[in-house]
Amino acid sequence: MNNQQWTVAARPRGAPVREDFALREQPLARPGEGQMLIQVLYLSVAPVMAMYMSGESIAQRPPLAIGDMLHGRGVGRVLISRHPDYEPGDVVHGQMGWQKYCVTTAPPEDRFYKFQADDLPPHLALGALGMTGFSAYCGFVTVGEPSPGRPVLVSGAAGGVGHLVVQIARILGCEPVVGIAGGPEKCALLAELGCHTSIDYRQGHLAARMREHCPDGFDLYFDNVGGQVLEAALENLAFGARIVLCGSISEYNQAQVSGPANYTRLRRHDASMRGFYVYNHEAGFAAAEATMADWIRRGELRPVQHIVDGFDKLPQALMGLFTGDNTGKQIVRVHDEGEV
Amino acid sequence: MNNQQWTVAARPRGAPVREDFALREQPLARPGEGQMLIQVLYLSVAPVMAMYMSGESIAQRPPLAIGDMLHGRGVGRVLISRHPDYEPGDVVHGQMGWQKYCVTTAPPEDRFYKFQADDLPPHLALGALGMTGFSAYCGFVTVGEPSPGRPVLVSGAAGGVGHLVVQIARILGCEPVVGIAGGPEKCALLAELGCHTSIDYRQGHLAARMREHCPDGFDLYFDNVGGQVLEAALENLAFGARIVLCGSISEYNQAQVSGPANYTRLRRHDASMRGFYVYNHEAGFAAAEATMADWIRRGELRPVQHIVDGFDKLPQALMGLFTGDNTGKQIVRVHDEGEV
Repeated sequence: MNNQQWTVAARPRGAPVREDFALREQPLARPGEGQMLIQVLYLSVAPVMAMYMSGESIAQRPPLAIGDMLHGRGVGRVLISRHPDYEPGDVVHGQMGWQKYCVTTAPPEDRFYKFQADDLPPHLALGALGMTGFSAYCGFVTVGEPSPGRPVLVSGAAGGVGHLVVQIARILGCEPVVGIAGGPEKCALLAELGCHTSIDYRQGHLAARMREHCPDGFDLYFDNVGGQVLEAALENLAFGARIVLCGSISEYNQAQVSGPANYTRLRRHDASMRGFYVYNHEAGFAAAEATMADWIRRGELRPVQHIVDGFDKLPQALMGLFTGDNTGKQIVRVHDEGEV
Repeated sequence: MNNQQWTVAARPRGAPVREDFALREQPLARPGEGQMLIQVLYLSVAPVMAMYMSGESIAQRPPLAIGDMLHGRGVGRVLISRHPDYEPGDVVHGQMGWQKYCVTTAPPEDRFYKFQADDLPPHLALGALGMTGFSAYCGFVTVGEPSPGRPVLVSGAAGGVGHLVVQIARILGCEPVVGIAGGPEKCALLAELGCHTSIDYRQGHLAARMREHCPDGFDLYFDNVGGQVLEAALENLAFGARIVLCGSISEYNQAQVSGPANYTRLRRHDASMRGFYVYNHEAGFAAAEATMADWIRRGELRPVQHIVDGFDKLPQALMGLFTGDNTGKQIVRVHDEGEV
């Protein structure tokens, strides 16, 4: 049986373009001892993938060389298992790469998680009920320590992590929940998701508009973008405010990142800027998944999954993240759930 | 009776020079209801004063106009009191300005504190037993949450706040305590004060040398300087590390501050960057003073006070802070303690 993979054809200069990707077809290996063969159902598309393409290494994943298959998280069905913890038919999520079938490496190189909420669609394992959701939940709740009744600001608020954070903030009673996104469509989505206010960053004057919506400053800012939005937020902090650093998409494709010029604003208000790496919070994943699955079943949390159909659409789906096309979590369907 | 005051003659371009200061003589006002006349014994000299001269406003002090008297903390003896809380003979410290005698404003505009440790020299009210010491103690202990046995890094470690922080770290059992300062003399002082290691920043390769002294990263970095030292420290963080932002002297005279380019390093290690404003910790001042006075009496804490003699030396004393001349807390003696 043959497998298809997307590889790095060239290093992106700035945002990736179609020519930076190449499709490769090759025979599928058979799983050895401790390995599994997984049929990939859905693949996640995230901005960080472009950084790997550029040859950078972040978190624990190695940088990519020209010709390497792209990194990517997926959810799939186990077809063959020679691993003691998994059986054929299990739905698992983890690092699968941009390919139609995945033969896992022997442990412990890559971690896979069983999808628990089998009454809910498996693609949620790439959104609210997987690493994206765990980033939102652990980052906002555990690292950010939100308080009911206190104002929260979220950037990239219509994105994969952000659209979950604004809803978690609303469910936990933070007020107002102010979301930042680009363009009227995304701002309309934020209103539907329960944001009390939204700010369209394309209209400029960010710091002034934050002040307008929250004159006494924000208690918690969840940062998905870095750059000028982070600087504007630093001008609008309340006493003891926390800034949670989750992502910084505005900086991913820049040759030279300068860092927030006004970072010393943290001093005035005894505020802090807190980074987190989601795998440091692995002990909390099961609770996060259970809590969010419950919110989804009760209709309080609405995951927005933007599902593009077809393995061939992966490059476009990634490119779209840098032109601001996407709302919610960007996902590509590789195989239908019924198809083997 | 006439009073003398130092005023802003010109805005400094970069570090202040002698021509930026002017001496003014004028009659001394009599204290009104709620006011005091204070004979200034010692004045503190600190980098922030140059920022005020440049027309910037930080913390709660207004920016200075050309012709205004310089801001400055002092310790002095109450000569006349029309304030119910103070009596003639009391030794008090607070904002006095660069002048020989100070007529206080009516409360609550400026806060004065009685010097409690009357068995110790009053100039300590401008060092370990005043706002400088409270910045060191509250910033390091309350905000930084140090742990015994864990590695601590301090920049500006031979400076007013820094030389206290390295000693507090050593007394609390942090290990190793690594101090950063400029030049062999200051590094020798750090060894005397009990630093386990010192790094002379003038010899470059900061990040590599931090790693050498502490391969697993620092648990706590107390930052007095910002700039490249902060960036190097961000490359050397342990899991859960805290960076306490106290000062950023390397950036005070720069037209354009860029912020730490690698601030997202906080993400890898679940680390945080915490600002603090010392007056937010006023409730802890009495305990900080009592603890540090005790350490001084027992010989465990050694305040390094660099006392320059004479009111006329104030401009040179401030200029010296930007050429790296000073060790310890920089103080100018205005009147002898016996002189009235």
